[in-house]
Amino acid sequence: MSPRILLRTFQRISGLRFSSTKPAFTSDRYKVKRGPYARISNDHVAFFNELLGRNRVIADAEECEGYNIDYAKIVRGQSTLVLKPKTTEEVSTILKFCNENRLAVCPQSGNTGLVGGSVPVFDEIVISMKFMNKIIETNELAETNLGVLSSDEFFALGVLTCEAGCVLEDLDNHLGTVGLMMPIDLGAKGSCLIGGCVSTNAGGLRLLRYGNLHGNVLGLEAVKANGEVIDCLNTLKKNNTGYHLKHLFIGSEGTLGIVTKVAIQCPPLPKAVNVALLGLNSFEKVLKAFRLAKRELAEILSSFEMMDRRSIDISFTTFGMKSPLTSKTDGHDFYVLLETSGSNVNHDEEKLGSFVEKALADDIIEDGTLTSDPTKVKHIWALRERISEGVLREGYVFKYDISIPILSYYKVIEMIEERLRDPRVIRISGYGHLGDGNIHVQVSIPSYEPDIASQLEPFIFEYVSKLRGSVSAEHGIGFVKTKYLHMSRTSSEIKLMHEVKKMMDPNGILNPYKVLYPLEISA
Amino acid sequence: MSPRILLRTFQRISGLRFSSTKPAFTSDRYKVKRGPYARISNDHVAFFNELLGRNRVIADAEECEGYNIDYAKIVRGQSTLVLKPKTTEEVSTILKFCNENRLAVCPQSGNTGLVGGSVPVFDEIVISMKFMNKIIETNELAETNLGVLSSDEFFALGVLTCEAGCVLEDLDNHLGTVGLMMPIDLGAKGSCLIGGCVSTNAGGLRLLRYGNLHGNVLGLEAVKANGEVIDCLNTLKKNNTGYHLKHLFIGSEGTLGIVTKVAIQCPPLPKAVNVALLGLNSFEKVLKAFRLAKRELAEILSSFEMMDRRSIDISFTTFGMKSPLTSKTDGHDFYVLLETSGSNVNHDEEKLGSFVEKALADDIIEDGTLTSDPTKVKHIWALRERISEGVLREGYVFKYDISIPILSYYKVIEMIEERLRDPRVIRISGYGHLGDGNIHVQVSIPSYEPDIASQLEPFIFEYVSKLRGSVSAEHGIGFVKTKYLHMSRTSSEIKLMHEVKKMMDPNGILNPYKVLYPLEISA
Repeated sequence: MSPRILLRTFQRISGLRFSSTKPAFTSDRYKVKRGPYARISNDHVAFFNELLGRNRVIADAEECEGYNIDYAKIVRGQSTLVLKPKTTEEVSTILKFCNENRLAVCPQSGNTGLVGGSVPVFDEIVISMKFMNKIIETNELAETNLGVLSSDEFFALGVLTCEAGCVLEDLDNHLGTVGLMMPIDLGAKGSCLIGGCVSTNAGGLRLLRYGNLHGNVLGLEAVKANGEVIDCLNTLKKNNTGYHLKHLFIGSEGTLGIVTKVAIQCPPLPKAVNVALLGLNSFEKVLKAFRLAKRELAEILSSFEMMDRRSIDISFTTFGMKSPLTSKTDGHDFYVLLETSGSNVNHDEEKLGSFVEKALADDIIEDGTLTSDPTKVKHIWALRERISEGVLREGYVFKYDISIPILSYYKVIEMIEERLRDPRVIRISGYGHLGDGNIHVQVSIPSYEPDIASQLEPFIFEYVSKLRGSVSAEHGIGFVKTKYLHMSRTSSEIKLMHEVKKMMDPNGILNPYKVLYPLEISA
Repeated sequence: MSPRILLRTFQRISGLRFSSTKPAFTSDRYKVKRGPYARISNDHVAFFNELLGRNRVIADAEECEGYNIDYAKIVRGQSTLVLKPKTTEEVSTILKFCNENRLAVCPQSGNTGLVGGSVPVFDEIVISMKFMNKIIETNELAETNLGVLSSDEFFALGVLTCEAGCVLEDLDNHLGTVGLMMPIDLGAKGSCLIGGCVSTNAGGLRLLRYGNLHGNVLGLEAVKANGEVIDCLNTLKKNNTGYHLKHLFIGSEGTLGIVTKVAIQCPPLPKAVNVALLGLNSFEKVLKAFRLAKRELAEILSSFEMMDRRSIDISFTTFGMKSPLTSKTDGHDFYVLLETSGSNVNHDEEKLGSFVEKALADDIIEDGTLTSDPTKVKHIWALRERISEGVLREGYVFKYDISIPILSYYKVIEMIEERLRDPRVIRISGYGHLGDGNIHVQVSIPSYEPDIASQLEPFIFEYVSKLRGSVSAEHGIGFVKTKYLHMSRTSSEIKLMHEVKKMMDPNGILNPYKVLYPLEISA
């Protein structure tokens, strides 16, 4: 299937739009059985009204709807009650009451997750964290007798403490005022909340440079299923005193506790940001370019994103965006978006210049462009960022977020091409964070076809599993991937996960049907 | 107490040496009560002889001695049996047998710990990990059909997988051959083993730049108390599938399981390393220099170490080392050792040049020297590294490894000076990883005096606790700090730690009397 043919097919259907109809109820589509939880009674609602006041208790069916459907519209729950606590104590009281009354709950952050983890499956009570959105001054935590921190002191400390409901972008803007930034950045930054990022161990665009949240979260506060508040709100870079409990809550998707506060280390804002777009003619050369970038750009390399021709074509065609690379009229088989962030404009440009020179001399790249002009930088990033949105216009899209050792990174696309020789397929495309070994695979067809689904799944997960890859690199397990968990984790791990869950939440009230399913719950 | 007086006092006793006599038995000195464990019988020894062969079972009292005494000679156990497994299966069989027979064990790595965590307290069986020292080729783990990795492929992948008993320095040397390095570096690198580093979440000299082991360990394999092998040997940078269990084993000091294998991400080896030694006249200026370094050196800053006058004087006087700063004959009140690691010699020198220029212009530093000459770099690092060794020659030294928010960093020294106006005190000195908020406090006296001990403890821990600091920044809790755990961790955390311990090791056989003490053990 040549790119040219795909492009034609694509143009044919490009007028299609996703319908705005609601997804089917999760319980119907996926045939899930409701767990042994109590039903919400008027007495329960009265308790919550008393605790939070009526304007923070939503019991109206229409108002609840937005909390029942996820961003990607793949799942739909049937909750009839949404609670909006403002304090850790309220979260604690809610959970204690729910645990004693065997009421299941679904913690909800920005609801931007892609695996159905953030909405209920049945009638779980939604606990929305949006109202816990205060930034906490560091001096409230420590009797340093320093008063409110000056910008210089804040910068030197490099630690932000805040409630779980703060919007990621707001935090980044706040930090910008003192010359710092968040160590994490996501497409969803305008709506995702930091508590959700932490609970899902969100990855994103800065991971290559700054590492993941297990390394950057210094401390957190969380509430266990029984209402116990676990205060691990450490703000120190080093604290080797006993077990490092915070990691239980990072990436467990709200099934072990609800994160209420977070302390995070924040790197200095770079003074120079440069972006290059490279055109290459094979995946082997993409790998060569990556090695060269690791050697030549080393400490200033902040992104290394790969797109195959069929991915970037989506941005060119659907959105009519222009390619900044013009040497070949028919484009390139592979593209690399490479970003550097550093503290010295001239040095970074010199390093990039030398990188490009070597890459050309060694015949690694066919063409390339380099810019620090903010408009051009934005344009190049948009070529990468709009792929995910654009492909949805083609019809139904099977999307996979997988990790594989980078030496086999692109093989997964070749395998799917090999297997899926079906005229209904519009486009098979692969792009992603090559530097992290994380590829996003997209297979688009005009509308959902069960037989194509069964050609793809579980095949793709089995293939990934054979390479010891991950069936969910950054999106998590949520609801939709529970049956594939065993393909990326060993049976010894899954057994221990169940033991941990049982210890932390013996009644299984926290985000049921997610991550570990089915659960053993004491009757 | 002026530095000058201290210096004179110091010269008076500089002929003293630590005696080579063995420390008292831990159980006597600290009045610990033996737990409800079985005693080792001949049948037990026969089982181990059968399993490992006689040359990997040490039952000779004299040979056992080295395994009973720690590096700092502060504790001494009474074990009569040392086992040296070579495989995970052997570790598993040993633990299963010990768990079923209620035999307590003490996992031992390089035995370079400083809090008595790596030697037995009573007759715990020592499980020495020294023989599990193989580097595992990445292609043994994944069916990538790539054969043995070339250096280029190894470099691109940037992941090392090895057994727990590998010596840190050997791993660093191995990685050096392909242009990579370990993300961790310690004074003890020539003898510490990677499994022990992981089990204690060791910090060290590269943490400021590369982050801690929670961020760098990609996966591990560990054996639970009951012999179950938990295979979390993930080698991917991103894998959001279920609970991130590896963190249970990182930093829990062998009380939740024995780490047998590790996969770790490894950064590129820097091409340029520069070191500066700065002289400053107040701690406030040290902080200013740190802020300036964060802004100007940003991504190339790899160490920011502070020494007060009385710390560096140890290196000058005890070892007769020369100061490279000569503008003031009586030296400086504070010194900063600053290191940069980058990929371009010229760029790094320019950045450092600009940093020094600004620091001089703003009157932040009194004097400074800058070098990339390996001999000079080594000399400057030695001034910092020999402090810890040199001070031991003064007699008895109270050493504390604490974290506090860096704005209050040096206050702890001032507080001790205030409190401890005692003519027997030779020297109160502070130095450490300022960039990480980690200070090493040393109080030296000619020989141990209980009344001075009681003036220092628990005062210093209470002071640190009030500032929400850590009573053990990087050394861990081990045996000697168990009674201070509550000063850096909340009661909710300690309760949960006990629950985790009970789940993982219900009989409490793994490294008893350490981290959590006393433990509730089912009788």
